[in-house]
Amino acid sequence: MTARIVDVETIDVRFPTSRDLDGSDAMNEAPDYSAAYVILHVGDDGAGGDGNGADGSGGERNGGDGSGADGSGGERNGARPAVSEGHGFTFTIGRGTDLAVAAARAIGERAVGMSVDEITGDLGAFSRHLLGDSQLRWLGPDKGAIHLGAAAVINAAWDLAAKQAGKPVWKLLADFTPQQIVDLVDWRYLKDALTPEAALELLESRREGRGEREAYVREHGYPAYTTSAGWLGYDDGKLARLCREAVEQGWDSVKLKVGADLGDDVRRCRIAREIIGPDRRLMIDANQTLGVDEAIEWADALEEFGIWWFEEPTSPDDVLGHAAIQRRIAPTHVATGEHAHNAVMFKQFLQAGAIGICQIDACRLGGVNEAVAALLLAAAHDVPVCPHAGGVGLCELVQHLSVFDYVAVSGSMEDRVVEYVDHLHEHFHDPVRVEGSRYRVPEAPGYSAQIRRETLEANRFPGGSVWAGTAPVTS
Amino acid sequence: MTARIVDVETIDVRFPTSRDLDGSDAMNEAPDYSAAYVILHVGDDGAGGDGNGADGSGGERNGGDGSGADGSGGERNGARPAVSEGHGFTFTIGRGTDLAVAAARAIGERAVGMSVDEITGDLGAFSRHLLGDSQLRWLGPDKGAIHLGAAAVINAAWDLAAKQAGKPVWKLLADFTPQQIVDLVDWRYLKDALTPEAALELLESRREGRGEREAYVREHGYPAYTTSAGWLGYDDGKLARLCREAVEQGWDSVKLKVGADLGDDVRRCRIAREIIGPDRRLMIDANQTLGVDEAIEWADALEEFGIWWFEEPTSPDDVLGHAAIQRRIAPTHVATGEHAHNAVMFKQFLQAGAIGICQIDACRLGGVNEAVAALLLAAAHDVPVCPHAGGVGLCELVQHLSVFDYVAVSGSMEDRVVEYVDHLHEHFHDPVRVEGSRYRVPEAPGYSAQIRRETLEANRFPGGSVWAGTAPVTS
Repeated sequence: MTARIVDVETIDVRFPTSRDLDGSDAMNEAPDYSAAYVILHVGDDGAGGDGNGADGSGGERNGGDGSGADGSGGERNGARPAVSEGHGFTFTIGRGTDLAVAAARAIGERAVGMSVDEITGDLGAFSRHLLGDSQLRWLGPDKGAIHLGAAAVINAAWDLAAKQAGKPVWKLLADFTPQQIVDLVDWRYLKDALTPEAALELLESRREGRGEREAYVREHGYPAYTTSAGWLGYDDGKLARLCREAVEQGWDSVKLKVGADLGDDVRRCRIAREIIGPDRRLMIDANQTLGVDEAIEWADALEEFGIWWFEEPTSPDDVLGHAAIQRRIAPTHVATGEHAHNAVMFKQFLQAGAIGICQIDACRLGGVNEAVAALLLAAAHDVPVCPHAGGVGLCELVQHLSVFDYVAVSGSMEDRVVEYVDHLHEHFHDPVRVEGSRYRVPEAPGYSAQIRRETLEANRFPGGSVWAGTAPVTS
Repeated sequence: MTARIVDVETIDVRFPTSRDLDGSDAMNEAPDYSAAYVILHVGDDGAGGDGNGADGSGGERNGGDGSGADGSGGERNGARPAVSEGHGFTFTIGRGTDLAVAAARAIGERAVGMSVDEITGDLGAFSRHLLGDSQLRWLGPDKGAIHLGAAAVINAAWDLAAKQAGKPVWKLLADFTPQQIVDLVDWRYLKDALTPEAALELLESRREGRGEREAYVREHGYPAYTTSAGWLGYDDGKLARLCREAVEQGWDSVKLKVGADLGDDVRRCRIAREIIGPDRRLMIDANQTLGVDEAIEWADALEEFGIWWFEEPTSPDDVLGHAAIQRRIAPTHVATGEHAHNAVMFKQFLQAGAIGICQIDACRLGGVNEAVAALLLAAAHDVPVCPHAGGVGLCELVQHLSVFDYVAVSGSMEDRVVEYVDHLHEHFHDPVRVEGSRYRVPEAPGYSAQIRRETLEANRFPGGSVWAGTAPVTS
């Protein structure tokens, strides 16, 4: 009997966050945080009759809550625990989630019938197989809805692989040999900036000290910063109160959303800086609203408030524009990446010296494999990676990437912080634990990606109880 | 009574071109040329009951073949012909067309209820409105399936506007004032390379001679080149035969697909060059298969065959990579753009000197508006625009853009050719007319985008008769 993927279940999950303007910024006025959610269902040869999750019925499957994360159940394939599901998702903000779901289904069908050992034994080949459909590729390549859908499936495969190995994803990665890590990456378009051989050398050079760093991060956690204070929809009073609370809670970095009105932003940065004092770090985020020259004007006007980084000043596609801004506003760092859609974009941002802070996203990049490519490129260019998080479950995922980066790739926590927003964690089986402004290292097997079944049902769009009685929504 | 958009009809149209390997190249092994097709249906106030095209029933609507292009029918709104439909599409290659259709529907719903005069009176504002949904934008921004869908809708609006004006799109554009042309463009991210004021000045400087150029292109047509000879799936014998036929038919430029195997490509280029002789132009197209250093290796090995341009040598996102290749292989031009997803990409390719030939695509860019932005950027950088075409209906669309470019923007045909592939034109109401290696100028009102209703039904996927009896297809 060979364990195979017998079904790809996809779910459109949406949270009505726009009702409170949580997550509002100058570009994203009223997001409903959402996920295009994927469950890879495992069965034995001949168990294909189980593959009926595509009807959207939402019934329970495979017994219990279907988590498979508890490590119980019978053994098979030798000593490994029997894992029945891999969970993954990509993050979206409401309308259009159906497109990402359809993309995940189209990509995910390429996994159906593959053996689990084939997938988890060579996750690099698996990723290239999923991304290699020549007809679907036309919709990207490696960008937009089709790449978001691919990320959901690839993340689910990593969750499956890590559960099968009985390890959290960061530990699965950190225990790989340098060659195994290099083999995760599609090098086709990256070699002019970093060859596989140079990446191997970098990883070998960081091999010493991995044990000590792993012990250190397990004991002390990984630094975080909070965006919860500075959403653009909040008034000055709420901004001030949340900044005070951030200080009281021990945060030493605070980020504000800017970019709609410069006068407002000057006032808001002044409020924030007065409350957090001169020593804590203040970052700003324009969410792509500005042109290149406007961004420089903004940075000049806000310079007096001591800005550590200026995030997403302009179009996420504009490598040369970011480079022009970075040349002008140093020592303030330009930070971008949450909308950088693939490793070729990160390659260029790094080659051009366009960013001082590299903000990978665990769901916009094509899952763990492409995130590893970005970590290697950033380390080779000596640029700190500070992942984008918040949304639905992004904190849960990126903590794995940053802990892996610290243990095995960059080997450093200096100038590195993972974004933290205190939203929606209660819906996850294995939510992040942030204590004293630091992420505690996740220890449960998997990618911390699994949303509770009752949440999946209640927030299923449009049929879930959370959405019952709302006005008809067209997409 | 006000004429309004009462419905957006969307159709998934696919042609089984993979059966003959027409259109095969090193990246796109077996495409089924397809279109995510959009019809904007116009009705009067209170006529909303007509808006039932979303059920996919495919029944006839609005009488006859619904073309509206014949200018018959009653007059309304003064002297303008009553136009009942605007047709547009984006081009895809098979699986995933359903995603582009869903995107077109989501974007198109933003047009329902708008008055036709509001749309056609300010097509710049209309385009910004369609692209401005903050939740859908997350799937891009301005890239991937959501941008392809937007292109289909925006192209349909231009077809509607041109039919209402009783002009082909190129002529509608060419009759605009320079300020009207400038107002079509979203300048937010472009001003560091070209300001609206500088664009206005450029257009003013080309105003003289517009009448002469219009008369010239109507008399002599616009230069074309053929790709029909060089698809990668053809064997040497077929390649040689098609090259001979191209010469006999009067073509003076021929393009070959390369990038799978360098030895094969050397042999194929030698065959082609021997047949077409030393004076005709030979271009090659790697369809993104190569890394930066490999592309340089390819160019070096094929240099002896006198290559005019090297198309899509590497990742379409790699501005810096193309710049490195262009620096190395001049005087061979680097050409790219069919997968450049928005004007910010073209801005950078031009700023970086990364391309000597600018290949806009009428359906990957966000419709006519963003194509106009690319034309202006290219003219400002003195780089010839040679649009990507072929596929389904791309020739029909881009001829309008190149004729407009000649009359009103660049003012030149020098080193400019529009791609031509002799496939699938018979399915269009107003197909391109190519004579003596030149496009004849389209004269029918609209954007030449309209596919015959019988084709839409026969090729509707998966239900159309063309697809009946084929193996179950999953996407």
